[in-house]
Amino acid sequence: MSTKKELRIGLIGTGLMGRIHTNGYFQVAHFFSELEYRPVLKAVCSRNEAGVKAFAEQWGYESFETDWKALIARDDIDAVDICTPNDTHAEIAIAAAEAGKMILCEKPLARTLAEAQGMVDAIEKANVPNTVWYNYRRVPAVTLAKQIVDSGKLGKIFHYRANFLQDWTINADLPQGGTALWRLDAAAAGSGVTGDLLAHCIDTAMWLNGAITDVSAMTKTFVKERMHQLTGKVEPVGIDDACLFHCHFDNGSLGLFEATRYARGHKALYTFEINGEHASIRWDLHDMNRLEYFDHSDESVVRGWRNIHVSDGDQPYMNRWWIPGTSIGYEHTFLHQVADFLKSLETGEPCSPNFQDALETQKVCEAVLESATSKSWKETGVTV
Amino acid sequence: MSTKKELRIGLIGTGLMGRIHTNGYFQVAHFFSELEYRPVLKAVCSRNEAGVKAFAEQWGYESFETDWKALIARDDIDAVDICTPNDTHAEIAIAAAEAGKMILCEKPLARTLAEAQGMVDAIEKANVPNTVWYNYRRVPAVTLAKQIVDSGKLGKIFHYRANFLQDWTINADLPQGGTALWRLDAAAAGSGVTGDLLAHCIDTAMWLNGAITDVSAMTKTFVKERMHQLTGKVEPVGIDDACLFHCHFDNGSLGLFEATRYARGHKALYTFEINGEHASIRWDLHDMNRLEYFDHSDESVVRGWRNIHVSDGDQPYMNRWWIPGTSIGYEHTFLHQVADFLKSLETGEPCSPNFQDALETQKVCEAVLESATSKSWKETGVTV
Amino acid sequence: MSTKKELRIGLIGTGLMGRIHTNGYFQVAHFFSELEYRPVLKAVCSRNEAGVKAFAEQWGYESFETDWKALIARDDIDAVDICTPNDTHAEIAIAAAEAGKMILCEKPLARTLAEAQGMVDAIEKANVPNTVWYNYRRVPAVTLAKQIVDSGKLGKIFHYRANFLQDWTINADLPQGGTALWRLDAAAAGSGVTGDLLAHCIDTAMWLNGAITDVSAMTKTFVKERMHQLTGKVEPVGIDDACLFHCHFDNGSLGLFEATRYARGHKALYTFEINGEHASIRWDLHDMNRLEYFDHSDESVVRGWRNIHVSDGDQPYMNRWWIPGTSIGYEHTFLHQVADFLKSLETGEPCSPNFQDALETQKVCEAVLESATSKSWKETGVTV
Amino acid sequence: MSTKKELRIGLIGTGLMGRIHTNGYFQVAHFFSELEYRPVLKAVCSRNEAGVKAFAEQWGYESFETDWKALIARDDIDAVDICTPNDTHAEIAIAAAEAGKMILCEKPLARTLAEAQGMVDAIEKANVPNTVWYNYRRVPAVTLAKQIVDSGKLGKIFHYRANFLQDWTINADLPQGGTALWRLDAAAAGSGVTGDLLAHCIDTAMWLNGAITDVSAMTKTFVKERMHQLTGKVEPVGIDDACLFHCHFDNGSLGLFEATRYARGHKALYTFEINGEHASIRWDLHDMNRLEYFDHSDESVVRGWRNIHVSDGDQPYMNRWWIPGTSIGYEHTFLHQVADFLKSLETGEPCSPNFQDALETQKVCEAVLESATSKSWKETGVTV
Repeated sequence: MSTKKELRIGLIGTGLMGRIHTNGYFQVAHFFSELEYRPVLKAVCSRNEAGVKAFAEQWGYESFETDWKALIARDDIDAVDICTPNDTHAEIAIAAAEAGKMILCEKPLARTLAEAQGMVDAIEKANVPNTVWYNYRRVPAVTLAKQIVDSGKLGKIFHYRANFLQDWTINADLPQGGTALWRLDAAAAGSGVTGDLLAHCIDTAMWLNGAITDVSAMTKTFVKERMHQLTGKVEPVGIDDACLFHCHFDNGSLGLFEATRYARGHKALYTFEINGEHASIRWDLHDMNRLEYFDHSDESVVRGWRNIHVSDGDQPYMNRWWIPGTSIGYEHTFLHQVADFLKSLETGEPCSPNFQDALETQKVCEAVLESATSKSWKETGVTV
Repeated sequence: MSTKKELRIGLIGTGLMGRIHTNGYFQVAHFFSELEYRPVLKAVCSRNEAGVKAFAEQWGYESFETDWKALIARDDIDAVDICTPNDTHAEIAIAAAEAGKMILCEKPLARTLAEAQGMVDAIEKANVPNTVWYNYRRVPAVTLAKQIVDSGKLGKIFHYRANFLQDWTINADLPQGGTALWRLDAAAAGSGVTGDLLAHCIDTAMWLNGAITDVSAMTKTFVKERMHQLTGKVEPVGIDDACLFHCHFDNGSLGLFEATRYARGHKALYTFEINGEHASIRWDLHDMNRLEYFDHSDESVVRGWRNIHVSDGDQPYMNRWWIPGTSIGYEHTFLHQVADFLKSLETGEPCSPNFQDALETQKVCEAVLESATSKSWKETGVTV
Repeated sequence: MSTKKELRIGLIGTGLMGRIHTNGYFQVAHFFSELEYRPVLKAVCSRNEAGVKAFAEQWGYESFETDWKALIARDDIDAVDICTPNDTHAEIAIAAAEAGKMILCEKPLARTLAEAQGMVDAIEKANVPNTVWYNYRRVPAVTLAKQIVDSGKLGKIFHYRANFLQDWTINADLPQGGTALWRLDAAAAGSGVTGDLLAHCIDTAMWLNGAITDVSAMTKTFVKERMHQLTGKVEPVGIDDACLFHCHFDNGSLGLFEATRYARGHKALYTFEINGEHASIRWDLHDMNRLEYFDHSDESVVRGWRNIHVSDGDQPYMNRWWIPGTSIGYEHTFLHQVADFLKSLETGEPCSPNFQDALETQKVCEAVLESATSKSWKETGVTV
Repeated sequence: MSTKKELRIGLIGTGLMGRIHTNGYFQVAHFFSELEYRPVLKAVCSRNEAGVKAFAEQWGYESFETDWKALIARDDIDAVDICTPNDTHAEIAIAAAEAGKMILCEKPLARTLAEAQGMVDAIEKANVPNTVWYNYRRVPAVTLAKQIVDSGKLGKIFHYRANFLQDWTINADLPQGGTALWRLDAAAAGSGVTGDLLAHCIDTAMWLNGAITDVSAMTKTFVKERMHQLTGKVEPVGIDDACLFHCHFDNGSLGLFEATRYARGHKALYTFEINGEHASIRWDLHDMNRLEYFDHSDESVVRGWRNIHVSDGDQPYMNRWWIPGTSIGYEHTFLHQVADFLKSLETGEPCSPNFQDALETQKVCEAVLESATSKSWKETGVTV
């Protein structure tokens, strides 16, 4: 009935990200009805047959697979969405690229820079549309921050600071590994907060403020051993529980970053702040619909940080939603990315961040971890 | 394929509320998969054929109507959802009740108490499930407030205060009437901020704090004349632009309420605060995922208002959503009401607020407007 | 040694206000050194001889008295500062005026309008400089609010709302009366929160927004009986524990006021907000060095409430203090009033608020209490 | 008349700190009347005769000097207060110690660790009472933070972060050097934000969280040349405009510090946060009367950051001041230190931070600057 072009999705992984991406696929037609492409939930894949069957039924996938290779081999799949733990990203993405599929990959791109480089090589060779789910770029307040930066309102930038603070692993009795806790298992995750949390901060930072050129970092593993859910034994914890670094940006500004899962009281405090010559911006994920903005050109006696409720129709993405003063939620950021990905298929422009962009973030993560290990400054090698 | 029971929805009205209710209907299966009932988008109705056809297509309704009487007459509709302007609620609801349909009606129930009473009579006679979309009860933070009140933590209540402040009608060049601006037209809306905004405040207040027994109010129409979109002429404005009242609650506490569309700087500032003997609560729609709570039993030197980010799995509704620290949006409140309505069909319990509850709110609104006109205290007649 | 003119102070009352005014007298020379007048702490008076002697020694008064009539009779006193409970204001002020003394009187001016009128008559007949300690006008952020209002930035005013919330009398075991708790004793205080707290709100409101013309109020005494410290018996409580009213201002705006000592969690939450056509302002005593300001003329996508830290040299009074970003305290507001009073002696201009201004506030308080009693609207009779 | 012991003060330096310390000396008797010692403003010293004469008259010093050596040589001076630029601290302090004077020295103790060590040696040899004006320890909210830490409520500490952000030197036309701008002149100041701002952060941090053992830092001078007020020529800027470092504390926690004068929008944002196993604390100088506290032992559904208004009589120092809910200001922190210094003379206990404590802070500053220069980690050598 619909005259739209179909984009047949094959989703791999049925965890939180699998659910939230799926939500984006079926919601996009309702809120971005002008798009030429329409996602079709063709197949979902997970190793647990009962689980994936239930998922397919609940979310409306036409079919399911228990082997991702089978999914990639299907002719009726246009795009593969990778929502599995980090240790599988490279293998799946490279295979999907070789099969000519478009790829939407969860972040971080990979466990290591080497893995990530292989993925980028594959995708460039295959020349397929791709994107990586650094979803925070599409929080309307963050997109507005980007517009403000691009407008030149800030002037020369002096400082960029960001942190991502959580507190969910303080309990030393929490095990590591397995489906639920693979983020605590170095073999599956590659790293701890660096790949999980700092990668978000770095992606946003380089989008807003350009290349990070060199870093000095420290990491810490507060809980040294945890029971491993796969082996049943107490095993060393290989991930970084906390990671802090300072750095130079190519534009001459200084960066300061911190991520931890041991900051009692913070569920998911992702904040950033940019200080420019003329104006400053700050944002906090806990209050994601707000942006704070300070403009030194305001009359001095009534100058102050402006608290902007980003919910008006002239603010990014918000003409799709409700009424001024009301909020949107976490999942909307993924939905926005789906919409932008579909739009990119129309225009032929890349859908940022693509694999190449995510590779640059991976370079910074790698340099950060190396710096922490070697206790020395490291060049990132990010393309300026 | 699904073994769920179908609840065949007939939606009347394709504006903002039409969209947001529809969103609730198709999302509920994804996030409340345990429910026995499954909404089916059977038909949507609006007078504009092209518009309703496009709406049906965009949102997946199986069919459309341009005459609400035709929709009500259909055998394949179980529940009628009324999202039209206030002046049509009574006629549609009464007809739907007489046709034996379940009814989900937008708030306020009606333009006047007399209209509302007729609707309640009809629904009681028909004995059909019903609910009214006072959606803010189902903001998780507000539901949590209800749980805190019910727990007895507050002790004896002294004060309840609420306001709903907007600024969208300050411009005197804004016309009244027509599809977009019927809220400014007394004939269509019944009243101004009293029915539109205060009705929300009153519904929440009586849910949390019991019956309002008597009121003293004032209203004001700041812009006395506006061009009417239906007549094309400048006509008197019949609605209240602002309404303030104080009142007694049956439990001995004092209430203070204010609503306006002339509070520059506030897009949709709906706040309430309850002060009890032992503890206090406050909430603000602008930051709807937060609840503030003060507990006098905390150790004195470290006592302070707690800012609760209501996003954990043990907080109301939040086990359906994402991860601690992330937000949900405005539309989720409607989705929660859909889920609770479906659940009520399973249990046979009423889905609060039902028409009777909304009638009580209407009594307060009527007393408020009468008090403002007569410049005297008025009994509300709310059932204690 | 100093070439300044002396202003010889006679202070009556050695409680909190006695201390804080005295602080203003001896600090003014340090921070407003350009003033021609210099306060001299000539005498302090209180009935308790040991107490007043210790006070004089601690604060550097040259002498003390135990009978206020003796103090007023002294030739070496230029100005009498009245810091006693409300029931003594009228008698002392009238006697001081008749003795030709300047008068600085604590607020509220009196217990009743009739008392206050007698005081104004006396002072006008005597034609002596006078002021009333409504100190909040001289919080720099509040003075800045006044400047913003006077600049016309707000445009036509629609709404004014203020509240003053405390929680210190919730405990029903707290006695009434005596030196420490005269504010709970109607005979000494005249009224409860109306004269104590609302009087502040009303003074600020009429200074910022003009005359209040008519009011509709309600009051409540939550704890009906308390042990009286003077009689030792449980006696009825005659004061209002809470008072709420709405009103009209002469400029067409609507006012909403609330004060209580039963708002758990609020130590001294005095807030006000003004909503104008073009801009809005709000302030909170808890964070007295901040002012919030919303300007609709800001570019729409970056428009928001500005949080102004009022601590720069170009903001009111702040060129006397420390460095931008640092705070001043509660006592500074009294010091500012001392400085402005001394300045008024140089210029011959009245030091606002003077007795006549305070009489207008008293009229509103009286109308509020009468409205609450009669459950009807009351004209205030305030001079427009 | 007074039976108190006199502490005869000789103040050197008549700038902001000279004024604010003097304020503390004459106010202490009013608010801490139980102390045995009473400061007497015996002499003030500054090179500008007209200026120091006017200062003495305004603030009530009995005499003045234009040569600090003359002041130190006087027999009628018990304590020397050093409020001059950093380059004079060492010479004056050493001379004063040799003259047997007590010393109250502005922070940072000196320009370099070597200078500071010399001062400590002198003071230990002379065995005279001494203190350094790291005033923020005596903000009531910060003192409360210390009490909370000492109570063990936080449990094991994971993170400490602090920053001190200003924006007053962004203008490249601002000159360096001279009386007003010596802080921009490396010869006078020793360093830029490290000694001026980070020194405060480090002092508070080691007081609250113990020794900092090793650091990795970066510094930046954004404006490379400024006109020098003493030479009249454009000269290189030798100070650090910004400094960031991360570090280890001896207790196993990680530290993150940042200071800058290029953070547009921040007048004096000094914040710190401590994350412990069980609870967290944070504070911000802009709102110095508030402390935020998160206690994980609170019931989970109503758990949140508590915003404590530190203004009750049972909170540190606040029994000296006004009424709950009201604020004190910046200068009160110095007054508290005067009181504590006087008390230390009674008890014989050191008045923290003394020269030895300040030396430890100097060690960290020195390590920070060396780390930034060498781009490597540095041990601080702080006594654990």
